[in-house]
Amino acid sequence: MPTVTLLNEADLRAAVPLDLEAINAVEHAFRLLATEKVAMPPILRLDIEQNNGEVDVKTAFLPGLDSFAIKVSPGFFDNPKLGLPSLNGMMMLLSARTGLLEALLLDNGYLTDVRTAAAGAVAARWLSRPDARHVAVIGAGLQARLQLKALKQVRAIESVTVWARDPAKAMQFAEEAGRELELPITPCETVSAALADADIAITTTPSRTPLIEARHLRPGLHITAMGSDAEHKNEIAPEVFSAASYVCDRLSQVRVLGELHHAIAAGRVAADAVFPELGQIIAGQQPGRTGRDQITLCDLTGTGAQDTAIATLAFARARQAGRGFPFQS
Amino acid sequence: MPTVTLLNEADLRAAVPLDLEAINAVEHAFRLLATEKVAMPPILRLDIEQNNGEVDVKTAFLPGLDSFAIKVSPGFFDNPKLGLPSLNGMMMLLSARTGLLEALLLDNGYLTDVRTAAAGAVAARWLSRPDARHVAVIGAGLQARLQLKALKQVRAIESVTVWARDPAKAMQFAEEAGRELELPITPCETVSAALADADIAITTTPSRTPLIEARHLRPGLHITAMGSDAEHKNEIAPEVFSAASYVCDRLSQVRVLGELHHAIAAGRVAADAVFPELGQIIAGQQPGRTGRDQITLCDLTGTGAQDTAIATLAFARARQAGRGFPFQS
Repeated sequence: MPTVTLLNEADLRAAVPLDLEAINAVEHAFRLLATEKVAMPPILRLDIEQNNGEVDVKTAFLPGLDSFAIKVSPGFFDNPKLGLPSLNGMMMLLSARTGLLEALLLDNGYLTDVRTAAAGAVAARWLSRPDARHVAVIGAGLQARLQLKALKQVRAIESVTVWARDPAKAMQFAEEAGRELELPITPCETVSAALADADIAITTTPSRTPLIEARHLRPGLHITAMGSDAEHKNEIAPEVFSAASYVCDRLSQVRVLGELHHAIAAGRVAADAVFPELGQIIAGQQPGRTGRDQITLCDLTGTGAQDTAIATLAFARARQAGRGFPFQS
Repeated sequence: MPTVTLLNEADLRAAVPLDLEAINAVEHAFRLLATEKVAMPPILRLDIEQNNGEVDVKTAFLPGLDSFAIKVSPGFFDNPKLGLPSLNGMMMLLSARTGLLEALLLDNGYLTDVRTAAAGAVAARWLSRPDARHVAVIGAGLQARLQLKALKQVRAIESVTVWARDPAKAMQFAEEAGRELELPITPCETVSAALADADIAITTTPSRTPLIEARHLRPGLHITAMGSDAEHKNEIAPEVFSAASYVCDRLSQVRVLGELHHAIAAGRVAADAVFPELGQIIAGQQPGRTGRDQITLCDLTGTGAQDTAIATLAFARARQAGRGFPFQS
C-alpha cells in the first residue's frame, strides 16, 4: 500500500511564504523551459456552462526535478452568491521516476497565488529598469497585493499608484496593502493618472476590454500583464504591441489565451509572429531590455512549469519541517 | 476550511464491486454522452520519455450528476524492474455546482479497472447476440479476468477460450480465472483456435500489431476491443473494418487513439467516416445488432464519462457505508 503525504493550506502557507526562494524556484522553471526538453502539454479545460464554472488542469515535467505537479484549478463564478470563493484548487505531486503519487497539496489555490506573483517578480527582474522605483497596479485584489510583495524583493520600490474599476476598492487597497507592505500607495481615478510616473505597471484584473492603451505608455516603462489567462480576458490594447517589446511565458499558449491572442485577432500582429519567451531571456538566448527608453511588455498566462516548481519546493520544505499527514492508499 | 473525504483502495474495493449496479452506472454515462450536453474535453497527455512514463488526465461533466471526476492515470513501464506496478492512478471528485473538492479516491487504478470492464459488458449487452454462450479472450491479464466477470452478468456465458502471447500465462489464466469465475476456460495456441467457436471476442492486450484478422471472423461474432487506448496500440487488423459493423465509445477519440486510427492510417476507412457511438445505440438513436449473422466490433478507448460515473457511484456508496477519512484542507 503506497503512502501519500497530505498537506493542507495551513501547512503550505507555513512552508512556502512568498520569498526570494520561491521567486528563484519559479525563475529556474522558466529557464528550464528554454534550455531543457520540458514536457508541458496544452492546458486541459472543462467548461460547465450550466453552473458558470470552469476547470483548468495544468502539468509539466521539468528535467532535473524529481517530481512533477498536476494542478486542478476550478473557477465557479456564482460561488460568491453561496458565500464561497470563486477560485479554488489543489495540486498533486508525482514521482517523475515512477509516476507514484507522493503528495496531495490541498492548498485551496494558495500555491497558485504564490507562483503567479513570483512570475511577475521574475519578469520585472529581467525586463524592468534596474532602478525602477514607481509602480502602477491595475486591479485591487489579492494578486495585486502579492505582485507588489514579490516585486519588492527584486526592485527597490519606493511608491505605488493603484487604479481599480471600483474606486472604493482602490482606496481600501491603498490603505491595507500600504500598511502591510510598508509602501505609500496612492489610489488614482484613471489608468492614465496611475501610469503617469510608473516605471513598472502590473495588470491583475479579469477585464474583457483593454485597460492600458498606447497613450498611457512612457519611455522605459515595463508592463507585466497577469490577468489574461483565458481567451476572453484582455487588459492590453492591441496598439501597445506596436510600441512595446513583447515577451511571453509560453508562445504556444499566449497565441491562444494571452494578450497576444487579442493583438492577433485585431490584425495588429501576424498569427505566426515569433516573440521571445521569458525563459529564453533568463537563459541568455534572447536579449532582455536593451535600452533605458525601451518599453517592455511581459504577457504571463501561467504555466504548468511554475506549478511543478512551486509544488516541488513546497513538498521539500514541508518535509523538512516535519509537516504533513501520511495516508495509505 | 473545506473538508474533503479521503477514500483508499480498500474503501473503494468494498464500496464498488464489479456488479450490475456498476455496469448500469457506466451504461447511463454512455447514454448521457448521446442525449445530453456532456462536457468532455480531449485527454490531457504528459509524456516523460526519459523514464518510459506517461500520464493521462481524463474528465467529463455529465448533466444530472451532482459531481464530476478528474482522473490521473500514470503508466511508468520500467516500474516492474523496481518491483512496482506499471499502472496506477487516482480520481478527484468535485462538486458540479461549486467546483469544490468533495473526495479523493486513492484507488491505485482499481476504479479504472472496474469501469473499463463494465464498459465491455455494456458493449456486449447492446451488440452481441442475446444468446451468446462462448467467449474468446485475447490476453491473460487482470482486465481479461474482469471482462469475463462483467460479461457473466449480462450474458449466460458457458465456456471460454483464451489466447496469450505467452502460452504459460494462458494456461495459468485458464486455471485461476476458471476457478474464480466458475467457467470452463481452455487455453489455445493460436488466435484462430481461440476464436473458432466464439460468439464474443474480447481483446485486452497492449499489442502494437493486429491480433484479430479478417480470416478469424465468423458470422454473428461480436468483438469488444479494449486494449487500444493509445496511438501505438493496435489489436484489430484494418480489413476487419470491411466485414464488421463498427461502433465506438467516442468518435473524436477513436479517430486519434483507437483501432479506427489504424484503419484510417491503412487507407481502409476514410478519415472523416462517421460511425455510431455506443451511447447512441443505448439511447435508441442508432440501431445496434440488426441480424444474427452481423459481425460487430466495438472499439473502447476509455472516456472521462465512465470515470465520472464510477467515481460518483463510489463516493455515494462509501458515504452510505460510513467509510472515508475527513481531512480539512
